[in-house]
Amino acid sequence: MSTTVSPLAPTDVPSMPEIAGVRLATAEAGIRYKGRTDVLLAVLDQGTTVAGVFTQSKCASAPVEWCRERLKGGSAKERLARALVVNSGNANAFTGKTGRKSTRMTADIAAKAIGCKAADVFLASTGVIGEPLDAGKFDGVLDELSQRVTPDDWMGAARAIMTTDTFPKVATATVKLGKAKVTINGMAKGAGMIAPDMATMLAFVFTDAPIAAAALQSLLKTGVEDTFNAVTIDGDTSTSDTLLAFATGAAAANGAPKISRASDPRLKAFSKAFSGVLADLAEQVARDGEGARKLVEIIVEGAVSKASARTIAMSIANSPLVKTAVAGEDANWGRVVMAVGKAGEPADRDKLSIWFNGIRVATRGARDPSYDETEVSEAMKQPRIQIKVALGLGKGRDRVLTCDLTKEYVAINGDYRS
Amino acid sequence: MSTTVSPLAPTDVPSMPEIAGVRLATAEAGIRYKGRTDVLLAVLDQGTTVAGVFTQSKCASAPVEWCRERLKGGSAKERLARALVVNSGNANAFTGKTGRKSTRMTADIAAKAIGCKAADVFLASTGVIGEPLDAGKFDGVLDELSQRVTPDDWMGAARAIMTTDTFPKVATATVKLGKAKVTINGMAKGAGMIAPDMATMLAFVFTDAPIAAAALQSLLKTGVEDTFNAVTIDGDTSTSDTLLAFATGAAAANGAPKISRASDPRLKAFSKAFSGVLADLAEQVARDGEGARKLVEIIVEGAVSKASARTIAMSIANSPLVKTAVAGEDANWGRVVMAVGKAGEPADRDKLSIWFNGIRVATRGARDPSYDETEVSEAMKQPRIQIKVALGLGKGRDRVLTCDLTKEYVAINGDYRS
Repeated sequence: MSTTVSPLAPTDVPSMPEIAGVRLATAEAGIRYKGRTDVLLAVLDQGTTVAGVFTQSKCASAPVEWCRERLKGGSAKERLARALVVNSGNANAFTGKTGRKSTRMTADIAAKAIGCKAADVFLASTGVIGEPLDAGKFDGVLDELSQRVTPDDWMGAARAIMTTDTFPKVATATVKLGKAKVTINGMAKGAGMIAPDMATMLAFVFTDAPIAAAALQSLLKTGVEDTFNAVTIDGDTSTSDTLLAFATGAAAANGAPKISRASDPRLKAFSKAFSGVLADLAEQVARDGEGARKLVEIIVEGAVSKASARTIAMSIANSPLVKTAVAGEDANWGRVVMAVGKAGEPADRDKLSIWFNGIRVATRGARDPSYDETEVSEAMKQPRIQIKVALGLGKGRDRVLTCDLTKEYVAINGDYRS
Repeated sequence: MSTTVSPLAPTDVPSMPEIAGVRLATAEAGIRYKGRTDVLLAVLDQGTTVAGVFTQSKCASAPVEWCRERLKGGSAKERLARALVVNSGNANAFTGKTGRKSTRMTADIAAKAIGCKAADVFLASTGVIGEPLDAGKFDGVLDELSQRVTPDDWMGAARAIMTTDTFPKVATATVKLGKAKVTINGMAKGAGMIAPDMATMLAFVFTDAPIAAAALQSLLKTGVEDTFNAVTIDGDTSTSDTLLAFATGAAAANGAPKISRASDPRLKAFSKAFSGVLADLAEQVARDGEGARKLVEIIVEGAVSKASARTIAMSIANSPLVKTAVAGEDANWGRVVMAVGKAGEPADRDKLSIWFNGIRVATRGARDPSYDETEVSEAMKQPRIQIKVALGLGKGRDRVLTCDLTKEYVAINGDYRS
């Protein structure tokens, strides 16, 4: 773990309000780390709906499989949750039958502690892959946690799920649903093996809004597209990517209307705020990319479609040569051209223009005649770098966030497991 | 440029024989570097056939476009070359109309110096992208070079085309064609922006065998598939990838039969030797990957097809997390699982087995029970690391070469342009 906080960490950390129906507690279960919390228990009131999106990896972790199974059964409207157990330090991935037994055992322990069905317990694990997870370590711990859950320990919760993250990631929004005030709280962890193929990494969003599971699922699916799915640290998709959303419905007591469909017009403001929380968390993940010193925003416009713009933006965002150039504060637009060229999407070299932090360095397939190296060099010293590419072919536009590739990334990942 | 030679450089550098019909010379044209050669002229005897494969980038360089046009015109059998001009230091890529003018001017200067048509001059450039290439610098230089070309300066030629390479890359083979002895000489340069989507980087192969252009093209296309196309340094496909083959036909004077089709059974030994030269050069490119300290061979077997095995092998080879783990001498098989999982190809986690340098670390979806950390740690100290993955699904097998990702890669690429 890195000991210094990323220079890109947000300076304003929001004060996290309580969410009626959600109580949290954390503990040191000694999974892997010493002297820090590594397990989170969230207890959810009866009637809490749940939705989730997961890694598209063909080698998904045992907890991902567990959650998928929970969300598959029964009618979408009836998907309910009573608890969430998250541990850091061990991903319980590539652990075979032992891994499946371990998830079952964890859910059983949590169910017993809370007094619910094991099927209503959701699980997520993050950390080393391939090491068996000793669920016995949760025995006693979860029972003890269930005794002391509180509605306010959001920062503690965000801290307990961290691995190589250098700061806890939380976001909150308060919005009107009907005439009632509802709240959305979210937390996420990065910081490596981050490439969107669904929700990447672990993230959990809670609200007191009364939203049916199917509608929540729909909100989540729409919401991740331009937030978590538009972030990449290293192009490496995790086996454990999990984004779960929980709606306790407690705000119904204050007059919030019960929402059963995502298309309900009353959801408009909520939907926007919900996506805003996802976007905030996703940006924090990019800001805490392993070894990151610069937040990089890639904008591609003039592509033949949004999908094509996304592919090109991701090709730029995942290029080691572009990322090392940014680390070296070098406005190396040639590498941007390379990354556009290798994306395999329609592109006409002679129509291409490129900007670094608003300064056009290349236009119509060649260096901008008015290009001033000193001015751009100065701009590259900023902690936030925007690379904009205009293809001049159509109206497709997309935006992706990433970070630079530094020696620290190599250092962190060269000795993570050992 | 790196000043220390890669520790993976071959210890046996072959003595390069002459190839009748090929003469070479190099000079310091001052394109970008100081105190080193940066331009190569190869003069080819009349009747030399030519074949080429190029980058699939949508933003190919001006010299790539020039060569493509030369190879497109007329009947395949008639594709002839009289000269090859290669410069390092500037890729003449993303240089718009100026770039096109520059290739035309270079070809004109070379044609005048040699006394041939500009259309018979082949060009390749490597180095920085986006900077205009001043072809005026070749004026006088190519004329002077044409006066002093010699049949023996193969090492000098290989040196003149280097950029961030730490050693010149040459390979040679002598083989019987009919009853005559024929020779194949090759050279290549890396060392970053290397990901196969055709011939990656610059490579040139010369032979005195009398082979028609169409047959030569066919040999080249087959030959690159498991050689240059099976190498990746950083997943970044260059705008300038060029592999050209030239057959002078001079060996016909010694009785070598004239070959017009690649399917000619007499070509068998030659074809094997030709692919061997390509494989040798491709491995040297991996050995000289920017910042490389370890040569990494990825073998995937038991996939549903060879193509599927290739995709999975490339996913492993391009994973920054796998590459940094190798740099850290960490047998982190969890990251290999991750890379298999993200490849999108059929894979069953619970059938997966993984070996590092012959030691099985994981079997059937979990850690190998007999796995000994000390033994594997020792194996990971080797300069050559083989990662083998068995999927247990079918008979598809493939092999890809790459290198580790070190802090030196970041250092080299963080300040390459400036």
